[in-house]
Amino acid sequence: MMTKRRTLSAPEVIAKKRDGQVLSEADIHAFIEGFTAGTVPDYQATAFAMAVVLRGMTFDETVALTLAMRDSGRVLRLGRHAAPIVDKHSTGGVGDKVTICLTPIVAACGAIVPTMSGRGLGHTGGTLDKLESISGFRVALDERELKKQLRQVGSALIGQTEHLAPADRRLYALRDVTATVESIPLITASILSKKLAAGIDNLVLDVKVGRGAFMKSTDSARELARSLVHTGRLAGMNVSAVLTEMDAPLGMAVGNALETVEALSLLHGQGPEDLEEVTFAVGAEMLRIAGIAKTKSQAIRRMRSAVEDGSAAAVMRAMVRAQGGDPRVVDEPDRLPSAKHRGTVTSPRTGFVREIDALEVGIASMKLGAGRTRAEDSVDPTAGIVLSVKRGDRVDAGSSLATLHASKPSLLQEAKTQVLASLRIGGSKPKLESRIIETMRR
Amino acid sequence: MMTKRRTLSAPEVIAKKRDGQVLSEADIHAFIEGFTAGTVPDYQATAFAMAVVLRGMTFDETVALTLAMRDSGRVLRLGRHAAPIVDKHSTGGVGDKVTICLTPIVAACGAIVPTMSGRGLGHTGGTLDKLESISGFRVALDERELKKQLRQVGSALIGQTEHLAPADRRLYALRDVTATVESIPLITASILSKKLAAGIDNLVLDVKVGRGAFMKSTDSARELARSLVHTGRLAGMNVSAVLTEMDAPLGMAVGNALETVEALSLLHGQGPEDLEEVTFAVGAEMLRIAGIAKTKSQAIRRMRSAVEDGSAAAVMRAMVRAQGGDPRVVDEPDRLPSAKHRGTVTSPRTGFVREIDALEVGIASMKLGAGRTRAEDSVDPTAGIVLSVKRGDRVDAGSSLATLHASKPSLLQEAKTQVLASLRIGGSKPKLESRIIETMRR
Repeated sequence: MMTKRRTLSAPEVIAKKRDGQVLSEADIHAFIEGFTAGTVPDYQATAFAMAVVLRGMTFDETVALTLAMRDSGRVLRLGRHAAPIVDKHSTGGVGDKVTICLTPIVAACGAIVPTMSGRGLGHTGGTLDKLESISGFRVALDERELKKQLRQVGSALIGQTEHLAPADRRLYALRDVTATVESIPLITASILSKKLAAGIDNLVLDVKVGRGAFMKSTDSARELARSLVHTGRLAGMNVSAVLTEMDAPLGMAVGNALETVEALSLLHGQGPEDLEEVTFAVGAEMLRIAGIAKTKSQAIRRMRSAVEDGSAAAVMRAMVRAQGGDPRVVDEPDRLPSAKHRGTVTSPRTGFVREIDALEVGIASMKLGAGRTRAEDSVDPTAGIVLSVKRGDRVDAGSSLATLHASKPSLLQEAKTQVLASLRIGGSKPKLESRIIETMRR
Repeated sequence: MMTKRRTLSAPEVIAKKRDGQVLSEADIHAFIEGFTAGTVPDYQATAFAMAVVLRGMTFDETVALTLAMRDSGRVLRLGRHAAPIVDKHSTGGVGDKVTICLTPIVAACGAIVPTMSGRGLGHTGGTLDKLESISGFRVALDERELKKQLRQVGSALIGQTEHLAPADRRLYALRDVTATVESIPLITASILSKKLAAGIDNLVLDVKVGRGAFMKSTDSARELARSLVHTGRLAGMNVSAVLTEMDAPLGMAVGNALETVEALSLLHGQGPEDLEEVTFAVGAEMLRIAGIAKTKSQAIRRMRSAVEDGSAAAVMRAMVRAQGGDPRVVDEPDRLPSAKHRGTVTSPRTGFVREIDALEVGIASMKLGAGRTRAEDSVDPTAGIVLSVKRGDRVDAGSSLATLHASKPSLLQEAKTQVLASLRIGGSKPKLESRIIETMRR
């Protein structure tokens, strides 16, 4: 006798996952619907999350979780545009200001780029915090404002609205305090549900790998990238992933205003080489999946033109203006706020910079005031670190390795020790490799 | 440089257990203290519980958890008594009314027996529900009343007070709805913390094994028994475990008043053989670890005398009186309430009773009104099932297999089908074995 199976109760869903079994789409949807409605309380959600961390999920389960979380709130319709819509997402690193320079460059190449970003936590910075170092810049646009800006400017740099994937936001907050962040299916569903809810159908992931990244090994990063690309495809998106190295901070600046300055310098063709390399690699993939460029080299040529002919900087000025900031900062970065107190870290010996530990630099920057340990903390826009050297540079004893920025002199001393410890100076020049590890398209 | 390590934060404790590492005593205490104080919220406790379910705990960790939960509330001091204090705990089964007859028998043999029991849930009954079928019987004694009764009567049959091991009670309620009950370390800490908080230092566990028990296999029951005995010893108690078979219901009666009647009949030497076997096996172990009897046979002789000379029934009368009930029920069980409606299940064929499925009988009894599916439900004291046959009995087609008791005739029909399905009638007489599987002392 065939009967329509009832969906499992919340404890039954948890028990099934605890026992390593595969949940049905209907059961996952019922669980997330219950969580969204409040009938599945937080304590059941966290037990479930821990079971997923330890037992995993199939791709089909991950797709079901992604779509269930997407459907927990509004799904944006960004409207019809002549150009394709494309977005990027980074798994987070130290000195990662790619979004700020990438968005106007890709928009200047003809794509619609409604980038939704987050805030920093722990040793990694957040794009929204960096943007808010521009006085008056509003990262919270409502749907109407966003649509208008996309029509008029072609891009936006905003935070996620509360109405998109609320189940993801609540679950993420719980995962953050229950040691259940580190799960590839949960990370995948969290990233993709937000992007799907925001109406994105072309997405490039910048999956960071290394000491300063969430994924410490190339293997684990590859596993996450594969999960994102495959789940995204099953959920109806075009997704690519670029694996990029994050052992050392990206670029020279770490901190909010400091990184914004560096990102703006790239728009004028004056950014650090590694930042340009990552920005162009991710941007090329965005232009490719959006159908604007056929090959990586064609895409990079277009992006380089957009920088050289000033159109990328023009988009940035238009975005800053539209979002309430002073567009003059794009060309005059001195208008950004700067710290009252500075300190210099000098090299104890002559040699070559062999390593710069991104995790240590990230923590030092956080302690200087640029980051937060708890989501409710505020950040100091002016604090941070500007490295004077990059890997492979030759340094003399006593020469500057980094400048520290803080609002109080007392913060400088501890950070100096930590930044010094983060740099390994050796007798021989290290072998330098590309920041780009690989691109994964399916 | 030696520094005093700070205790881990709640997320760190969860992460460590998630990763299969061993937690320190200090970290477990800090976590449970936080949970008790409310600084570790429920959603962290359930993520932790799931990590323990899937990663396990060492004996040392289980001891730390047990002691931390004991110390989450008051620890009773039962006062000085000339006789040793001993208690028992059953992991729960169907028709398990052992506590009700065992407590007065062991007290009549000279031990102090402050038995704290629970309520029924699902297919297993609870001693408190059974006792409350005695009109006026109060299972909630305060500490002063309990101590007075132990001095005057030597035993008590009560529920756990709210002040004892409150962290265990709260954690158990959460585990019940998050699929985190099934963990030997968590079960061990739950049972032992309550007993330690109640001031018990000699404890015998009746670990049930089989279809109608929580532990379905002898191996898993043995693992739980070993954990209880070993952890109990490390936590400073004398603990023995008796593994008893629970494939078929114990005795003939299942239901609250019905089981109380059967337990009382044992006090008059008229109980079913298997109920007497389990009662005397557990009781013998209680008398042995309390130092009142040297051998099992000596203990059983003493218990048999206590039944035959009426002293066990006298203790029961004194307990019922002291706890507010009518002591005449002990000798006149007809005074207990009985159901309005009855139905008979008859045998469809001639043969031998080969199996009686305790789980099915337990669920049928619950549906008749004797049990509850949710902790907040109430029970019908009169509902239940009295089997007319036991395993190995020869039955004729059309003869009675069981009588069903319910307050509404509509409840009888479905239960009839279920009870009939629970009985396997075969052509040959089954091999009958003892209910006692083994006794584990260390």
